[in-house]
Amino acid sequence: MTPGAESRRPRVVVAGAGFAGLWAVQKLDGEDVDVVLLDRQNYHTFLPLLYQVAAAELGPTEIAYPVRSILRKAKNVTFRMGEITEVDPGERIVRTSTDELSYDHLVLAMGATTHFFGVEGAAKHAFPLRAMDEAVPLRHHVLSCFEAAAHEEDADRRRRLLTFAVVGGGPTGVEFSGALAELVHGPLQRDYPMLDMDQVRIVLLEAMDRVLGGMPEGLSDYARDRLERRKVEVRLDTPVEGVEATRIHLAGGETLDTETVVWTGGVKGVPGPEAWGLPMGPGMRVRVEPTMAVPGHEGVWVAGDLAYLEDEDGEPHPGVAPVAIQQGSLVAANILRVEGGESLREFRYRDPGMMAVIGRNAAVARVGGRTFTGFVAWVMWLVVHVAKLIGFRNRALVLVNWAWNYISFERAVRLILPYERKGRRPGLAPEEPGRVPEA
Amino acid sequence: MTPGAESRRPRVVVAGAGFAGLWAVQKLDGEDVDVVLLDRQNYHTFLPLLYQVAAAELGPTEIAYPVRSILRKAKNVTFRMGEITEVDPGERIVRTSTDELSYDHLVLAMGATTHFFGVEGAAKHAFPLRAMDEAVPLRHHVLSCFEAAAHEEDADRRRRLLTFAVVGGGPTGVEFSGALAELVHGPLQRDYPMLDMDQVRIVLLEAMDRVLGGMPEGLSDYARDRLERRKVEVRLDTPVEGVEATRIHLAGGETLDTETVVWTGGVKGVPGPEAWGLPMGPGMRVRVEPTMAVPGHEGVWVAGDLAYLEDEDGEPHPGVAPVAIQQGSLVAANILRVEGGESLREFRYRDPGMMAVIGRNAAVARVGGRTFTGFVAWVMWLVVHVAKLIGFRNRALVLVNWAWNYISFERAVRLILPYERKGRRPGLAPEEPGRVPEA
Repeated sequence: MTPGAESRRPRVVVAGAGFAGLWAVQKLDGEDVDVVLLDRQNYHTFLPLLYQVAAAELGPTEIAYPVRSILRKAKNVTFRMGEITEVDPGERIVRTSTDELSYDHLVLAMGATTHFFGVEGAAKHAFPLRAMDEAVPLRHHVLSCFEAAAHEEDADRRRRLLTFAVVGGGPTGVEFSGALAELVHGPLQRDYPMLDMDQVRIVLLEAMDRVLGGMPEGLSDYARDRLERRKVEVRLDTPVEGVEATRIHLAGGETLDTETVVWTGGVKGVPGPEAWGLPMGPGMRVRVEPTMAVPGHEGVWVAGDLAYLEDEDGEPHPGVAPVAIQQGSLVAANILRVEGGESLREFRYRDPGMMAVIGRNAAVARVGGRTFTGFVAWVMWLVVHVAKLIGFRNRALVLVNWAWNYISFERAVRLILPYERKGRRPGLAPEEPGRVPEA
Repeated sequence: MTPGAESRRPRVVVAGAGFAGLWAVQKLDGEDVDVVLLDRQNYHTFLPLLYQVAAAELGPTEIAYPVRSILRKAKNVTFRMGEITEVDPGERIVRTSTDELSYDHLVLAMGATTHFFGVEGAAKHAFPLRAMDEAVPLRHHVLSCFEAAAHEEDADRRRRLLTFAVVGGGPTGVEFSGALAELVHGPLQRDYPMLDMDQVRIVLLEAMDRVLGGMPEGLSDYARDRLERRKVEVRLDTPVEGVEATRIHLAGGETLDTETVVWTGGVKGVPGPEAWGLPMGPGMRVRVEPTMAVPGHEGVWVAGDLAYLEDEDGEPHPGVAPVAIQQGSLVAANILRVEGGESLREFRYRDPGMMAVIGRNAAVARVGGRTFTGFVAWVMWLVVHVAKLIGFRNRALVLVNWAWNYISFERAVRLILPYERKGRRPGLAPEEPGRVPEA
């Protein structure tokens, strides 16, 4: 049953079915190599829309796609579900929770995880928003806060249940805050007529002096203005110093009472590579050569969020889908060049631009040297995201959902299913561990 | 915040937002009473399509609808999420996990749960299929069995992973077996080219001498034939005597090695009413008068699967949606008659017929005195089920999904997310407790 055991073709193990891993695999498909794709999930997640799952705009199944379906037509690719536990670059062996694979080339594309920067209590109490099994519990938690507030007679607790702190003014923080504001001041306002929605506070906390720091300043100002019009409090120059179960501590000693802290404040490479002896750069990412090869470890390549590579100006590439896609493709091409005895190419980022959506008819976009805001940017955002989704069915379902949300001002995906999370749930005492909200 | 505290109108507490409870509430809406609807979930589940969630045909959000949205236009109805822990019919008080409510009328409509009939090991090892939080783990378990089988080198274990026993040949057992067969011999066959799908066994076990015992015999024969054509082994006259983690024991000493036993073999009323002193009938259901009132407990009514009432022939009414809907409406009407000083009406079932679907173009239906099979019955089934779904968005999404499934012979909702369940998961040792499969 071991794939490729009968052949003598070089074996490429690709770890991670995100953008970088999938694009590497697609480029290797049909070539004279055997490819094994590993992932801890059996599906690819379209991360740019993950915040919409958390904000009850889309269901989980609409932004995820089974890996085996993507690979159906691939002839030289097999998929194994499992988590990498160890890489031995000397012996060229990868170990997973269930087995052991030797490789000629290894592509590490497991991506990034949330970076709490050592802020006290953040890892324990804050909700990260980087993976499907984080977005779904967050949605249920938010909905459960409203359900609990609806019959909470203690006014202080009620205010605390209705205060939502979002840490980090990057695209995820901005998009989630905007989507949460539309959820609250639309459908939830109609669902909970007994609650005074003026008590709801959504506070976006950013340590720097503007949101969307990676975009031109005019777009930052626009985004901030549109968030504030949607009743999101945008607090700039406000680093977070600690998170408790019912409170968040801001720089300068101020505190905010809240049971919901969403942490979009930073990312770092997934754990592992340092222990396996790979050279590390800032943010727990693996330092690679411009060819995406890991120096000193022949046959090991890194692509996507897990790679640390600086551009011509000495800036690291941003952790966005186009970078991951282009790096994944380049790694695959370079592996084929190694096997063909050709010289390697270096990574040069072709920047297609950046976008972020604040809400209905409001988005920002930078494409080439031009910037766009408002309805035009919003339509561009819609078109790009639907076009990039994998699978006709998912595109159709996302369009039906979005059209329905847009026309009806509704959000339908509001079920609270039991879902285990390390945390607690509203209605239980804050310190009490419990099963948390899902669907 | 206590609803109705300011008014002197009679308070009706309705427990359960299933068909019986929702229809009772809708009938009471706008009348001169205050209604409090209680449910442990924040959504109504369209149970007739639950098996499609388990068989990866539909996503959970497509057959569920938030209760608060259903009630938005209701003026005298409030919703409380919570589970009933106790009823004190003497004091006329209902206690939930979070509070205490007094009532003038109490409608118990919490429905039924799985009945294992004391079969050894069944409650521990079998998968029930009566609620959303049972259907989703079952789907993940089935998919995880294939994922584990794909790289299981022990042939015995592989066969065991690919054997699926479905206990009970009623509509749920028949529909789930048929849907599972289409999933296996279509999309999964394409996803797992390394697996020999002839090794997959789906065994439907029925203790009686025919499936669909509540329907005319011709329909039973047709259903059995169509299941067998889809490679489901239908075993009649085969009671189950025990379930272990890796085996099921059949009457006569035969055993089947399997890690998946789906139990659709019976239902009983939810626990509670007996402890509260209500008169019980067979199957843990509350014995009611033909008016749906509980004898000896003024102000307490029962509707739907939790009620035990015989028809003119001395047969209990079946546990199907139309019975629940009609009983829920009658209870509401009778409550209004009590308040208006009018005499009560008795329940008389207007039978709209019965249907079950085996799969693509194959269904059975009895409507009035006539029976239908094949494509005609299948179209009738589709139309009735889409029409009865609550919410335009859910109807649209279900139609998109079904159309896509039908045209592409695919099933897209095949994600395996972590989901806590009492059980174990494939890949772990059978006895080891673990988090099980979701999406």
